[in-house]
Amino acid sequence: MSSSAAASVWARIRLADRRDVPNIHRLIRQMAEFELLTHLFSATEASLSDTLFPSPALPPFLSFTVLILELSHSPFSEDSDAPLFAPIVRRIDLESAVEDPEAAEFASPRGEGIVVAGFVLCFPNYSTFLAKPGLYIEDIFVRATWRRRGLGRMLLAAVAGQAAQMGMGRVEWCVLDWNVNAIKFYEDMGAEVMPMWRICRLTGPALQAYLHEK
Amino acid sequence: MSSSAAASVWARIRLADRRDVPNIHRLIRQMAEFELLTHLFSATEASLSDTLFPSPALPPFLSFTVLILELSHSPFSEDSDAPLFAPIVRRIDLESAVEDPEAAEFASPRGEGIVVAGFVLCFPNYSTFLAKPGLYIEDIFVRATWRRRGLGRMLLAAVAGQAAQMGMGRVEWCVLDWNVNAIKFYEDMGAEVMPMWRICRLTGPALQAYLHEK
Repeated sequence: MSSSAAASVWARIRLADRRDVPNIHRLIRQMAEFELLTHLFSATEASLSDTLFPSPALPPFLSFTVLILELSHSPFSEDSDAPLFAPIVRRIDLESAVEDPEAAEFASPRGEGIVVAGFVLCFPNYSTFLAKPGLYIEDIFVRATWRRRGLGRMLLAAVAGQAAQMGMGRVEWCVLDWNVNAIKFYEDMGAEVMPMWRICRLTGPALQAYLHEK
Repeated sequence: MSSSAAASVWARIRLADRRDVPNIHRLIRQMAEFELLTHLFSATEASLSDTLFPSPALPPFLSFTVLILELSHSPFSEDSDAPLFAPIVRRIDLESAVEDPEAAEFASPRGEGIVVAGFVLCFPNYSTFLAKPGLYIEDIFVRATWRRRGLGRMLLAAVAGQAAQMGMGRVEWCVLDWNVNAIKFYEDMGAEVMPMWRICRLTGPALQAYLHEK
């Protein structure tokens, strides 16, 4: 989407497919930069494609699932190829025209001047206390240009609505304790930030050391 | 397993099946009591059975997976019905005979005087930075009578070994920040306890509120 004087845009959340991998890869890299975690970033387009979009495809929300957030200056044409997840479309009012300096880099594979503005990646988790599956959000990200316009809320609400529709018990995700803007945003959306739980991670050589115990 | 003068026991980790649901339910209840979280416990045997052991069964470690820890005073007979996960068996030396006051309650459905001493429940997660799946451990639990004998280590090592064998990038789980014994145990096993991440949870009416956004 080029610079424009339009005072509103159309936002669409749809299921991602293999053609979205280059944009997903760029979005994840930006997220790693924002979280000051680029030293942990080793994903390639090929490795993302192999692990997120296996053949045959698994049904969405029963395995790793990516939803893509796209923006367009004109209404989206009907996406008849969406039997598994009906796209969610909203009109977003802008206070003034927005210049997107990354518009060319993040052009949508769907064409028509559509740009990719963010994504969410989730997969099923399970609560033994509830004896119910839930959804875990591994990543939720909106590019800097498009923040503070309700788009992050729209992504999170898409996952929450899906979980509720599927009769799941919880949606969970993690936040860095210094990211006070994100914490405020999540609490405003009804989430509880749990103070007492800490994440434990076994990775790299420490994980490989257990191979011999098989 | 009744009270016995034996100074060692055999421990086996095997894939759980539907017949293990009553014991799994009792173990989860004990875990909720230990974590002071019984107010969050609403699982029933029926709801556990439906959600953990759907028909047709999914391959282990690609969806919700329960491994059961059993103890026997005599060597286990060969489990020829285990094509999906080869049971892990260790001989555990005891300093003195152990009286298990819950032995009758936790009798194994496999009979032969075998008792169930614990379990681990895990499922796949995904790291976008690594572009690799991993395993997330939702629960790991050993009954109080049998703690501090290397059995928790055996359960965690079983999951870690499986993840390493499958080429996965990480094993992750959560710990309560006041559970210093668990934190020490996990660190000794090579895990990093991550200080800055907090879990966000959307559940109950706050989650149901998003149903209308679908």
